[in-house]
Amino acid sequence: MGDVTEQTATATTPLAERSAEELDAFAQEQQAAYDALKARGLSLDLTRGKPAAAQLDLSEELLSLPRGVKDAAGVDTRNYGGLEGIQELREMFAELLWVEPEQVVAGGNSSLVMMREVLVDLWLHGGVDSERPWGQEDKVTFICPVPGYDRHFTLLDWFGIDMVTVPMHDDGPDLAEVERLAASDPSIKGMWLVPTYANPTGAVVAQEVAARLASMPTAAPDFKIFWDNAYAFHHLTEDEAKSADILTLAAASGHPHRPIMFASTSKITLAGAGVAFLAGSVETVKWYTNHLGKGAIGPDKVNQLRHAQFFASPQGVRDHMVKHREIIAPKFAEVERILSERLGGLGVATWTHPTGGYFVSLDVLDGTASRVVQLAKDAGIALTPAGASFPHGDDPRDRNIRLAPTFPPLEQVSEAMEAVATCVLLAAAERLRAA
Amino acid sequence: MGDVTEQTATATTPLAERSAEELDAFAQEQQAAYDALKARGLSLDLTRGKPAAAQLDLSEELLSLPRGVKDAAGVDTRNYGGLEGIQELREMFAELLWVEPEQVVAGGNSSLVMMREVLVDLWLHGGVDSERPWGQEDKVTFICPVPGYDRHFTLLDWFGIDMVTVPMHDDGPDLAEVERLAASDPSIKGMWLVPTYANPTGAVVAQEVAARLASMPTAAPDFKIFWDNAYAFHHLTEDEAKSADILTLAAASGHPHRPIMFASTSKITLAGAGVAFLAGSVETVKWYTNHLGKGAIGPDKVNQLRHAQFFASPQGVRDHMVKHREIIAPKFAEVERILSERLGGLGVATWTHPTGGYFVSLDVLDGTASRVVQLAKDAGIALTPAGASFPHGDDPRDRNIRLAPTFPPLEQVSEAMEAVATCVLLAAAERLRAA
Repeated sequence: MGDVTEQTATATTPLAERSAEELDAFAQEQQAAYDALKARGLSLDLTRGKPAAAQLDLSEELLSLPRGVKDAAGVDTRNYGGLEGIQELREMFAELLWVEPEQVVAGGNSSLVMMREVLVDLWLHGGVDSERPWGQEDKVTFICPVPGYDRHFTLLDWFGIDMVTVPMHDDGPDLAEVERLAASDPSIKGMWLVPTYANPTGAVVAQEVAARLASMPTAAPDFKIFWDNAYAFHHLTEDEAKSADILTLAAASGHPHRPIMFASTSKITLAGAGVAFLAGSVETVKWYTNHLGKGAIGPDKVNQLRHAQFFASPQGVRDHMVKHREIIAPKFAEVERILSERLGGLGVATWTHPTGGYFVSLDVLDGTASRVVQLAKDAGIALTPAGASFPHGDDPRDRNIRLAPTFPPLEQVSEAMEAVATCVLLAAAERLRAA
Repeated sequence: MGDVTEQTATATTPLAERSAEELDAFAQEQQAAYDALKARGLSLDLTRGKPAAAQLDLSEELLSLPRGVKDAAGVDTRNYGGLEGIQELREMFAELLWVEPEQVVAGGNSSLVMMREVLVDLWLHGGVDSERPWGQEDKVTFICPVPGYDRHFTLLDWFGIDMVTVPMHDDGPDLAEVERLAASDPSIKGMWLVPTYANPTGAVVAQEVAARLASMPTAAPDFKIFWDNAYAFHHLTEDEAKSADILTLAAASGHPHRPIMFASTSKITLAGAGVAFLAGSVETVKWYTNHLGKGAIGPDKVNQLRHAQFFASPQGVRDHMVKHREIIAPKFAEVERILSERLGGLGVATWTHPTGGYFVSLDVLDGTASRVVQLAKDAGIALTPAGASFPHGDDPRDRNIRLAPTFPPLEQVSEAMEAVATCVLLAAAERLRAA
């Protein structure tokens, strides 16, 4: 495995400042470490933001609920109907999302499906404030903060919606860029935002940023903020971020229909069998349920009743999230520890230090992200494809990698991250030697 | 209440053959009966095809399932993924629907939602055999057998799809008309069909009719039959209708992608919390799941596992349906008895005698259906709106009323049907006197 003494001697010097000989030696060490890694025949997966089995076990009681079949209003949840969801669950999540119950729809098992439905409705019929259906516009464009959530971009692409990127900062999207774009181009009909513990950076949109997004002039009268609050309650520390109250801000600014909020219990209870929520102005909710009613009779109210009984109160949701934190915070700590120990000071990578959510966003040396992912794959470590956090999978600097440490057990997170570090270092050494 | 002797004396004479005086007397009797009915202040509902609570109770065990969380393939059903549904449920319903497992997708709680998804996919992207997305066609038209299912028509109307009606006969839609329309007009892209125990007539599409629909030349290369087999297993007698094997027929005729089949357990287990199915050619299934994957991660597999465990086998589904029959067949018998006793021989109504499904289709005197529904409403009996079984709610003869006797308890079915008979007779008498 080479001269450990020499490796230690140069471990604090940024790679870019090393001599050609030092770099050669470093590259050889990393190659040897990588060959050893590959020889182990690992099979590890850091690709998707999936809850671990231990997290799903927290909701075991759900599997033997509900007790009884009627909701608080006396409705038999087993039968058809109730497009807006059962009242007690709407009330519970209205409190959690800081809106009124009539501003909330409790739906099926997927907030992504609700986003798709909203886009279909906008496409075929336009929104409450649209001049015409979006499908009849010459062009529709969305502002996409990057890095962002791949499924958001895939969904837009499916509609043929153009995407223009803006940088995602620690306090939200680049405001100057967003304001400039939204004000100048009427084809820009909306933007994505994961406001709390963003996918993948963990950024939290600041109240002041949200206020400006809510109030900014837009060339399109029906500009929409798709406010995907997937991680609103998914704190990794006791310092719990509060989501900006976008609906109140928007209403106060005279743009009540601008934000459409999405949330779900997918990462609270069961990833595939939770309950999704949509929230917006009362008019938006009516618009949504009206269109929904053209091709749906009602959500799975039995599953909604299960959830209402399981949580019992808004505080029940918050308490439940603490149990998740206890399981996954150590995994995030392990990612941070290994990245710091292995990559710190070498000038080959930066990464986020999320206080919530499901991801760490790792930026490696420009031009090496694809190589890192390929190296990892060849060594049996599945990573999210390089570029996945950008529209069309195109990261112009080829540097971003999304790490998802929640699903594997802790010891596998350690193994996988040690392997990732080796791949990052090898790819960096290759790149610098070639330069 | 008038002279009962006189009423009896004329009870077997068709109303249209009675003298003006006899009609006047009859009308007065019916008016008196109707006034008495109204005075009772009833509140009864025959509007929708909903299972009764006693039917939902048959699936009580579902509410404490699943046992364990893994499916037959060892997949943790609680987590994300599995767009096509869990294997054992696909296999179970493949056998029931006479297709191969890879031709079946097990989805969420609503086959109507799957129909909507398919139409959205066709609209935005076109089908496996389309020249372009349907949304880019100048015009899209569907053939709609009438009377039919109101939600089918509402869904098409939501897309702006034109509807052309053809009569629904006892063995299926009017073949000559369907063949003529489909062959002559390339804007005609598809048709609805509820092949088994149709909504609302109870008609069963004969094998020969299905064969011709599967093989007929169509001007549109991507003509689709939306084969909504909602009532495939919903027999009211021991003489169980077999659904025509449309997918095999279509494949044998060289049109494998023409039919898209839908089914669900909504009226087998829980109306709002069942599992829906889509079936088609392997290419169609791939096309559907590919598009689905652009905006969905997977169905509620926990609920699918519940269903797989609850039924245990295809025979489990069939056995379960016998229990439904025992509950609802007496209600249909009561509808038949009251209609026969009260309206038989008077020449003012005909009605269907379904051997399965959820409805009786009642044709009253031309021009009186709306009046009957209004009279019933004023007396506290909610009926499906007149015309609901026709596109845009427009029954050109204003004669069809859909009766849905499953939901109310038997004694309420009796009360409601006695009331309906009174309203039919009163409306007929009014009409004939005015003529």
